[in-house]
Amino acid sequence: MDAREVTGEREFAVRFDYGEEWVAEIESFVAAADVESGWFHATGAVEDAELAYYDQDAFEYETVTYDEPLEVAACTGTIALDEDGEPSVDAHVVLSRPSGQTVSGALVRATVFDGELYCRTFEDALTRGRDTASGRELWE
Amino acid sequence: MDAREVTGEREFAVRFDYGEEWVAEIESFVAAADVESGWFHATGAVEDAELAYYDQDAFEYETVTYDEPLEVAACTGTIALDEDGEPSVDAHVVLSRPSGQTVSGALVRATVFDGELYCRTFEDALTRGRDTASGRELWE
Amino acid sequence: MDAREVTGEREFAVRFDYGEEWVAEIESFVAAADVESGWFHATGAVEDAELAYYDQDAFEYETVTYDEPLEVAACTGTIALDEDGEPSVDAHVVLSRPSGQTVSGALVRATVFDGELYCRTFEDALTRGRDTASGRELWE
Repeated sequence: MDAREVTGEREFAVRFDYGEEWVAEIESFVAAADVESGWFHATGAVEDAELAYYDQDAFEYETVTYDEPLEVAACTGTIALDEDGEPSVDAHVVLSRPSGQTVSGALVRATVFDGELYCRTFEDALTRGRDTASGRELWE
Repeated sequence: MDAREVTGEREFAVRFDYGEEWVAEIESFVAAADVESGWFHATGAVEDAELAYYDQDAFEYETVTYDEPLEVAACTGTIALDEDGEPSVDAHVVLSRPSGQTVSGALVRATVFDGELYCRTFEDALTRGRDTASGRELWE
Repeated sequence: MDAREVTGEREFAVRFDYGEEWVAEIESFVAAADVESGWFHATGAVEDAELAYYDQDAFEYETVTYDEPLEVAACTGTIALDEDGEPSVDAHVVLSRPSGQTVSGALVRATVFDGELYCRTFEDALTRGRDTASGRELWE
């Protein structure tokens, strides 16, 4: 366990545009507001979605695509600087069908029906690098 | 994408009363604390629940009712002023059965077994209005 | 409904260690940073998990174990002082399989594959005690 104290800097309320790509909308916000690191939450709906699941033995992502409208019951994630010093977005989602049936995972992409996001940024940027134990890009 | 900086104002820890209605408890807190806008998270358990799924073609909500006890694994949502200037609550939930099986969606109503909520309010109120692209009430 | 205003104190970004136990990692952070109460969010992946569901009639937890790798699409919870004045962790998780299929509930234990947590602590400690209506340990 590695804990570091961070200092909250700025807070944002973001509304996504209909028909745009969900992760790209987060990236657009990050670029426009000059965010280097933070934690965000979002809800809304999507017209389709591609989720990723990390194979813990193969060290590879598998993806699954849902070509159907889904509610975004929850979306949580982080912004941190990657190894090139560029802000990168890592998002997870919980999506629901009309019956309430639920699918979830890491979010690769989704088409926005609507979306609202809250983000709190940190004064000192967090950085992400490849973790040798998991093979994933994690806070260093 | 429309991003605006917001300023955090007050924070609250709220405990819901057994047997009351979940969304009404949030509304009671909002009225008692004079909250105009904010982002909240909650967990707990409910005795039953009614979820809504938005039909993206028909621009209508369909609802589904669960007449069974469920854990609230996650509840996320927003408070914003509606077109009449009154605070309105928009909540999403992720609910679980004894097997871990999960249902989720927009929350219409649920009977509280127990519930704990954290809310961060914003100094400048966000407002909600009907969005022409989605037909839903969104941040303006 | 019982609402109290709280004052945010410190914020932390925590990274869990591969192979450790998820809840124990949160407890290690709480001890190391001397946290008495707060609200946290986390995402990541686990190698296995044990979830709990509270039987609302029997006032007892039932548990279910998943001996398989799972993504942590969401993890939300609280830190509060128990009746002995010691910080206690209450966590809920939403977990996903390769297909996106989702299980969720209260988290008993899980083996960390990787995990990142954000926590905001409160200046005045919240306390937890046994609630007579639900039989659960809740904010007092």
